[in-house]
Amino acid sequence: MKLICDGLALSEAVLKVSKAMPIKKNNNILEGIKLVAKDGYLTLTATDLELSIVKRIAADVQIEGEVLVLGKFFTDFVKSLDGEQIRLECVGGKSLTIKYGENEGFIKCMEADEYPEVDSIDEQSSLVLARDDLKALISKVVFAAATEDSRPILKGVLFELKSGILTAVALDGYRLALCKKPVQTEVDNVSYIIPARTLVEVLRLADEADEDIRMVFSREKMMVEINNTQLISRLIMGDYINYRNIISTGFTSTATLSRDRVADSVNRAGIISRTDKNNTIRFELREDLVLIDAKSEFGNVHESVPAQIEGKDCTISFNCRYIQDVLNAVDDEFIKFNIKTSSSPCIFTKPDGDEYLFLVLPMRVSS
Amino acid sequence: MKLICDGLALSEAVLKVSKAMPIKKNNNILEGIKLVAKDGYLTLTATDLELSIVKRIAADVQIEGEVLVLGKFFTDFVKSLDGEQIRLECVGGKSLTIKYGENEGFIKCMEADEYPEVDSIDEQSSLVLARDDLKALISKVVFAAATEDSRPILKGVLFELKSGILTAVALDGYRLALCKKPVQTEVDNVSYIIPARTLVEVLRLADEADEDIRMVFSREKMMVEINNTQLISRLIMGDYINYRNIISTGFTSTATLSRDRVADSVNRAGIISRTDKNNTIRFELREDLVLIDAKSEFGNVHESVPAQIEGKDCTISFNCRYIQDVLNAVDDEFIKFNIKTSSSPCIFTKPDGDEYLFLVLPMRVSS
Repeated sequence: MKLICDGLALSEAVLKVSKAMPIKKNNNILEGIKLVAKDGYLTLTATDLELSIVKRIAADVQIEGEVLVLGKFFTDFVKSLDGEQIRLECVGGKSLTIKYGENEGFIKCMEADEYPEVDSIDEQSSLVLARDDLKALISKVVFAAATEDSRPILKGVLFELKSGILTAVALDGYRLALCKKPVQTEVDNVSYIIPARTLVEVLRLADEADEDIRMVFSREKMMVEINNTQLISRLIMGDYINYRNIISTGFTSTATLSRDRVADSVNRAGIISRTDKNNTIRFELREDLVLIDAKSEFGNVHESVPAQIEGKDCTISFNCRYIQDVLNAVDDEFIKFNIKTSSSPCIFTKPDGDEYLFLVLPMRVSS
Repeated sequence: MKLICDGLALSEAVLKVSKAMPIKKNNNILEGIKLVAKDGYLTLTATDLELSIVKRIAADVQIEGEVLVLGKFFTDFVKSLDGEQIRLECVGGKSLTIKYGENEGFIKCMEADEYPEVDSIDEQSSLVLARDDLKALISKVVFAAATEDSRPILKGVLFELKSGILTAVALDGYRLALCKKPVQTEVDNVSYIIPARTLVEVLRLADEADEDIRMVFSREKMMVEINNTQLISRLIMGDYINYRNIISTGFTSTATLSRDRVADSVNRAGIISRTDKNNTIRFELREDLVLIDAKSEFGNVHESVPAQIEGKDCTISFNCRYIQDVLNAVDDEFIKFNIKTSSSPCIFTKPDGDEYLFLVLPMRVSS
């Protein structure tokens, strides 16, 4: 392999693909980044077997070939070079020579043959979303996916296609997030479970897309291509939880509040509540106010936020972090709390419209 | 105690004094911040018994008094308030009420009586430095002070006053840093050992000073007052190492290089060398170049930087981190390496002038 490429382009590419390298280090070969020089391009690939990122940059390829370099090391080294022209050269496969200006570095290579093949996917369906819709969809739900391995299916986000609407749902047993957006697709009544980690990387890449983003699906994989970066991910197989049964209806009290004012109060309450093992925050709907309380052995806080209240006065308590997550995901001016009883799930929505919805289980608090 | 003060001023004050709270938490009472309301001021104090920071802000004091609040907690809570007017009130000493707008928080208090008294110091001498001179002096030497407790005196920086020149020296057994600046003082042939941690906080505060900074000394303490913030520190007692004996003279080779070019090369070499337990970087002076090499089991790097060489060709190796620290402390365009033998300390200086000097012990490397 022998090629010349732009240092800045290489640096950006390495940074992008390195996001697919495994977080837990227990497989040597996956700590590598694969470089393939062919047909006027250098293609970089990293994978953790679930998520793969492939990025292609223009290169003056003098000798075609492929090589597997130590990923972390290569990333750090390439980042440290100033945007100058870089020459990459590998003879014999033992080490990659990186020439920049008058200087050079050598980085040990691994056996490229042992690196898993990242196939392009066998397209069976596709969907197209406006870039900003996809960004909103992901950022509104992805935080609610489970992070523990105990129920692997909950580490994914459900993408449900029906009548030109894509509904994204994530839940972890304590809270649920749902967001709907219009979508262009040739399929209907189809659903996929996409790993949350994959969607976080899609979100990171999305800003580079011009307008629409196309997602391609096979039975077991999905692929997104944005600005010459291909992101290929396994889907999570199995049946998702029937989330519709969880979402309660028929509320006895609702409160509509300024998102910013309630977020400020909840954040201050969180400073107190996080020093307590239960991290409890209490909301009381009374007349035209929502009273917000938190306490721990070190102190307590009482706040009130003006609200438009309908229905009965009531009190409900939550894990403060879950409420902070919901408020961080909302970017509208107002948020509506929909409460049935103090022991039933609370639903957070827009004051009007059903574009998104968050559900949080309350905490049982002895009064 | 009962007072009204500006939220932003309180937030800044809390942030400043909290720097003196102990890093290791093993004394409950020192995790507090003491608030004293008196004569139209609120005075905040934190201390770890070595370093104390006292900050005074204007307040509308309605009832004088003092209280000791949980420091971390109070800091986080006050930071979370928007710059509005804040009312502080304490009745009975059990908890401090913080009122902001319509809302309020309560923070548990500790016994203020048990908090150590932070005395103002009994001035025996003083010195005045230009603000920028003091900043340069501290930032050029403080990194070389020891961080381990094994030789407490080396955790300090020597301030040596002689004929209107202040020489600051720090060393840790592997390297030494020295910087001189003109100073106005009534004393001569006097020296103090100031904890490095204290000087880091002085550096942080220095930007708020207008022009000159005055440091006041008693036999066992020093004090600096900048913009209503008082920083009082114990001095380290004892005799400092006779550093003059360590600084070698009579060099056989010198090399003068661009600081930026050598720093870039050393940083890249550091990416390689830091994966090796010895973290070794090798410099070779040859003709009109300094060749820079580093290697580890994962790769190696060879760079060359144009240099003005005088004397014999030679080779010398160091712990790369020590060289990075020296280069980070230098802000001149050029740096001069002064080498005696490959096993003698190397001295780094300005190409001309003796305002500062760094010494680094070489590593013995089998060739």
